[in-house]
Amino acid sequence: MELPTRLLCGTGPTNPDPRVLRAMSAPLLGQFDPEFTSIMEDVMAFARQVFRTSNPRTFAVSATGRGGMEAAIASLVEPGDRVLVANCGRFGDLFVDLATRYGARVSQVTAEWGHVIDPQKIEASLKRTPAKVVAIVHGETSTGMLQPQMEEIGRICQERDALLVVDAVVTLGGVPVEVDDWQIDMCTSGTQKCLGCPSGMAPVTYNARAEHALADRKNPVVSNYFDLSQLQRHWSPERLNHHTLPTSMTYGLHEALRLIVDEGLEARWTRHRRAGDALKAGLEAMGVRLFGDPRHRLPMITAMHIPEGVPDEAARAQLLQQFGIEVVTSFGPLRGRIWRIGTMGYNAELKTVVTVLAGLEHVFRSSGLKIPQGAGGDAAEKAYSPISTNERRPP
Amino acid sequence: MELPTRLLCGTGPTNPDPRVLRAMSAPLLGQFDPEFTSIMEDVMAFARQVFRTSNPRTFAVSATGRGGMEAAIASLVEPGDRVLVANCGRFGDLFVDLATRYGARVSQVTAEWGHVIDPQKIEASLKRTPAKVVAIVHGETSTGMLQPQMEEIGRICQERDALLVVDAVVTLGGVPVEVDDWQIDMCTSGTQKCLGCPSGMAPVTYNARAEHALADRKNPVVSNYFDLSQLQRHWSPERLNHHTLPTSMTYGLHEALRLIVDEGLEARWTRHRRAGDALKAGLEAMGVRLFGDPRHRLPMITAMHIPEGVPDEAARAQLLQQFGIEVVTSFGPLRGRIWRIGTMGYNAELKTVVTVLAGLEHVFRSSGLKIPQGAGGDAAEKAYSPISTNERRPP
Repeated sequence: MELPTRLLCGTGPTNPDPRVLRAMSAPLLGQFDPEFTSIMEDVMAFARQVFRTSNPRTFAVSATGRGGMEAAIASLVEPGDRVLVANCGRFGDLFVDLATRYGARVSQVTAEWGHVIDPQKIEASLKRTPAKVVAIVHGETSTGMLQPQMEEIGRICQERDALLVVDAVVTLGGVPVEVDDWQIDMCTSGTQKCLGCPSGMAPVTYNARAEHALADRKNPVVSNYFDLSQLQRHWSPERLNHHTLPTSMTYGLHEALRLIVDEGLEARWTRHRRAGDALKAGLEAMGVRLFGDPRHRLPMITAMHIPEGVPDEAARAQLLQQFGIEVVTSFGPLRGRIWRIGTMGYNAELKTVVTVLAGLEHVFRSSGLKIPQGAGGDAAEKAYSPISTNERRPP
Repeated sequence: MELPTRLLCGTGPTNPDPRVLRAMSAPLLGQFDPEFTSIMEDVMAFARQVFRTSNPRTFAVSATGRGGMEAAIASLVEPGDRVLVANCGRFGDLFVDLATRYGARVSQVTAEWGHVIDPQKIEASLKRTPAKVVAIVHGETSTGMLQPQMEEIGRICQERDALLVVDAVVTLGGVPVEVDDWQIDMCTSGTQKCLGCPSGMAPVTYNARAEHALADRKNPVVSNYFDLSQLQRHWSPERLNHHTLPTSMTYGLHEALRLIVDEGLEARWTRHRRAGDALKAGLEAMGVRLFGDPRHRLPMITAMHIPEGVPDEAARAQLLQQFGIEVVTSFGPLRGRIWRIGTMGYNAELKTVVTVLAGLEHVFRSSGLKIPQGAGGDAAEKAYSPISTNERRPP
């Protein structure tokens, strides 16, 4: 394989720290080798720190982020159960699809794509129709929106005796995800975004309330592979043989989580915020309109309107071929209307932002747009400048 | 991570060719980057050669071998469908579990563990009770048995209008798996055995008959992640966005399949047969009794009775700690009664066999057994000698 080098500024995978890829090429261990189970234990301990939880049940599903979401719904939902989905984008739609497939009676509270969910709507819906599970996407990758008021949503779910399931695929490791403080009952993520690892595993954590719900099921989980009540016995001293854990992915996840813990979560959040702010400032200085509610934009995914006159596919192909930079469009109503630019994990850096802006400037110019020369990079650098004193940069 | 070096002679993962691990540390590409989709195309083409099929629908599920089996059952079986499982081991049990979870009415034809299924039993059962799907394990890892007469089973299923689903997790790349010639409708495998790649993906292939069955479903597949009708649209020029393909695992699978095609399938089968023969001869020369029907033993998994006086767990721990060699016991009725020794992929070599036998000799002696010194290795070398003229050895 001869592979070109890419700056991956789509929505995942992102470029991992080279140390993560090196860890993935380490020699394999057997799945019940004490040296390997000790790596599993470390992964669990690191993941608890990153999820900000003391949940003993904190491990990884051997599938991508989507598989983690499915494991949550498959394991908690029985046919006929009521599920309320807070839906304002493509991954809210996925929760609806998953809950429907697993036999739930699904209600939704919605917001237009590019907006976020009002917690009062969740409360009002639960008052009308109690639900066993409330599912919400913390960072809606499809629109670039960050759901606020998670603590309030957690409080509402506790009061209404609903299990709160949160998709933190894009947010974990990039912005605060406070599993315990927000009373999240089950939270799932994916490796290939702000955790900075290749795609292929899905960290998951859940509390005693969720574990009781698994134990209290009347019917077995339809999926064997995503049956958390089995997986938790594999990821425990019991070491129930389930599937053969993906060894190299586990190494990669171990190294990725170790690097996060080493950097410090707060420093990492700050780094993502600064990179996102810089990118947004740079784009605006180039005359680009950002998409969605300005109060709730994700730092790690910046959604922008494709400027008039810029052909979506051809311009992205040019950016990829001439500059080796990947950005992506979105789904459904936003396909061909917006681009999404990721600054995640290792790429949440000023140099990534300036490089992307330089590439975009060239591509926009060749589509005939008039862009003030270098304005994007300058504005980005300016916006990036403020450094808080206790911030540590990655080596 | 400080990792010891292990000779992995359990049932998987096995030690991959170092080139596979190197491929997995390559820089990432975006999932719809033309350079990456061309790697996906290569994976499909290589996999067709390894499965001996011309099925256009030949790709990989982003999960371990168990996930591939689940994808097959989840996608083909609707609630109420009749499924016949040919069951003579733990992975036959898994087919029963999967089909039951997905709502099938399950019948079984069985054989005692350590034996194989008589095709006439399948025919008789289908005469009594027609089934939509017949599921069978080609190589039963739990017992070390290779199911013979697959062509006859394929003929019976065609005649009785049943879809033949075959688990080739342990056999693909190690013994003949003739998907087209045997009229297998859907065949699934896993990466971490004879394909010689870390665990984490599940190659799958299916023919037009199976594809029609997917299209003719009355109900959606319960699992979203394992819905082959969606996955096949991702692994096609349509490039339906489903999940983020595990990039590094895809690189590893690509390299592993490339190495198989480069070695030549027949040469690889011969190599596995010779290594298995050598190991069995060596064990018998040491006075060890092999397990199961001698006519149907797998070459790549050798099952042996644990000699009287050898403590299962302590002896395996000694083998691992003193010699860095992993062997495993089995499940259920065979747990603590047999060991299984894998000689798969890169490890299907005389040097692996001799090393394992030397380690076993030491461990057995320290349990007080009298073993003729060096007898195992000598017998193995002798049994390994015959080389067919057109055989190519891996570099």
